[in-house]
Amino acid sequence: MLKNKNTYVVAVIGAAGMAGRETVEILEERDFPFSELVLLDSEGSEGERIEVRGRSTIVKRLGKDVFQGVDIAFFFAGAAQSLAFAPAAVAAGAVAVDGSSAFRSDPQVPLVVPEVNPHAIANHAGIIASPDCSVIALVMALKPLHDAARIKRVVITTFQSVSGTGKEAMDELAGQTVALLNFREVEKKAYAHQIAFNCIPHVDAFLENGGTTAESNMRSEARKILADDALQVTTTAVRVPVFRGDAASVNIETENPLPPNEARALLARAPGVVVYDDPAHSLYPLQIEVPGKDDVYVGRIRTDDTVANGLHLWVVSDNIRKGAALNAVQIAEYLIKQ
Amino acid sequence: MLKNKNTYVVAVIGAAGMAGRETVEILEERDFPFSELVLLDSEGSEGERIEVRGRSTIVKRLGKDVFQGVDIAFFFAGAAQSLAFAPAAVAAGAVAVDGSSAFRSDPQVPLVVPEVNPHAIANHAGIIASPDCSVIALVMALKPLHDAARIKRVVITTFQSVSGTGKEAMDELAGQTVALLNFREVEKKAYAHQIAFNCIPHVDAFLENGGTTAESNMRSEARKILADDALQVTTTAVRVPVFRGDAASVNIETENPLPPNEARALLARAPGVVVYDDPAHSLYPLQIEVPGKDDVYVGRIRTDDTVANGLHLWVVSDNIRKGAALNAVQIAEYLIKQ
Repeated sequence: MLKNKNTYVVAVIGAAGMAGRETVEILEERDFPFSELVLLDSEGSEGERIEVRGRSTIVKRLGKDVFQGVDIAFFFAGAAQSLAFAPAAVAAGAVAVDGSSAFRSDPQVPLVVPEVNPHAIANHAGIIASPDCSVIALVMALKPLHDAARIKRVVITTFQSVSGTGKEAMDELAGQTVALLNFREVEKKAYAHQIAFNCIPHVDAFLENGGTTAESNMRSEARKILADDALQVTTTAVRVPVFRGDAASVNIETENPLPPNEARALLARAPGVVVYDDPAHSLYPLQIEVPGKDDVYVGRIRTDDTVANGLHLWVVSDNIRKGAALNAVQIAEYLIKQ
Repeated sequence: MLKNKNTYVVAVIGAAGMAGRETVEILEERDFPFSELVLLDSEGSEGERIEVRGRSTIVKRLGKDVFQGVDIAFFFAGAAQSLAFAPAAVAAGAVAVDGSSAFRSDPQVPLVVPEVNPHAIANHAGIIASPDCSVIALVMALKPLHDAARIKRVVITTFQSVSGTGKEAMDELAGQTVALLNFREVEKKAYAHQIAFNCIPHVDAFLENGGTTAESNMRSEARKILADDALQVTTTAVRVPVFRGDAASVNIETENPLPPNEARALLARAPGVVVYDDPAHSLYPLQIEVPGKDDVYVGRIRTDDTVANGLHLWVVSDNIRKGAALNAVQIAEYLIKQ
């Protein structure tokens, strides 16, 4: 359990990566009460410098012996690093807020979106998991509708930006784009296929059943966060040539009637959700407009009359911010308030 | 009715546009028996030259008096031009194969995908409509599954390339991309928003119900072609920063069980459909791989276990070729055979 203090020693693991850097920025921006910010990363990024409160701070090498005195540790260095080092952080007395997939399905670990299931935080035993970016945006949009009309089934197709893969994938999209515009050959590393001017229906690894881990996690994580094992969720996850910001076409079927206007009103009142829905004026959420924004944007809200109570939504958010760094920082803010 | 001849006088209206040029190429490629190819377009494109059988041929100005002696007229100049000039072509004795939306919903006009409903061609009264590009790809994939297991409901999210809008939209995607990579401002004309590195959930015009004409046409056209008014179809249509080739995430629910392997076998046997589905080797249809290809490619075929008989498909095709020009030429080939 986190001790009640005025200020906390905070560690960011994966500090040199995209979500890690964003976490540092958000901690400063939101005046998170840290007395010290320990920046950690694996060997390759050791020695990099990141500005913290105007001072250039060195990224130190991650190890099991670095957590002495740390109160809160944010993990954004991938599942393998979380599995290897989060228990050490907890053993040293820290609470680990894990942005990786390592502990999301662990029944002992709360999986939290603070606007949706903040109460789950209280049950932690040292580790709290932050969900996948697509899941965070999804449950933010589903929660108020689920509470009002009980969602039975969700059919989702995602449009995920390359930043979800990491900085090297963003460089690859830029590099491939320049190469193609100059009639040069395209180099591939981050994805199995060219991503520039192309959409790839392949996010994460394929499973035996023909789905991917990303697609399968949408169901298990949404069920865990919304605490509803009857919720049916099926997903096709697609990578698109967009740098940052994820979108999703979301089709829902509710048990009780939920007209678009009512859904709009419920979403407009939901914390962290913004309704952006005026198609007559070409207003709907767009990926290029969300980088740096905290909120989840919902638009194209309309009836699907092919089932009794059907509704379409178009959900867009910054996958690095609310989809990762911001959500983790919000979890820590709740921890402090408790 | 088309007279039985050895060779035909063929006109292409909108000959200078993308689908028109593709039609000219396909007519040559498939040795369509034309004695003469009359190239027509509106004022702006009058005088352009297009190669036909190795000879530079002038595009003439479209008018009501140009159809004398024409046997078959392909219309690819937009709905307004089709409405204005197709009746004149028919009055002059031609059969009009219309690639625009002008007559698609007209109950007197057959709407035809030759692999799906060739029998409908016989009922024409001078005009035969070729469906929207997204609809053509969809019904090509649905038809064999519908025949085998009766499809009850389809939930579609499209990933449509800018070529569906026209050449100026392709130039705009290229131009905006170059501008962004050079930190210059982006110019918008073809779409309400920047399309480079962005996805826009807005294809065609918005309707009162919050959907678009593109989304609404998916249902009406699919029902007409598959001759099943009970078929439920609901769509979210999205424009993506891809030059050519349309993709769609298609979720279907059938009345009778249809395991993925059976669906694969049915699709593999269907004319004009290619199954491209080996995710373990990162094989699935991709938009960058279809330009110039005649077939509709289907992959990511897998069970959706959130309903009794659910199936996911990922459908990709060349929107200019099978989605427009090729389908129209195939209609004319059927006409000749009759």
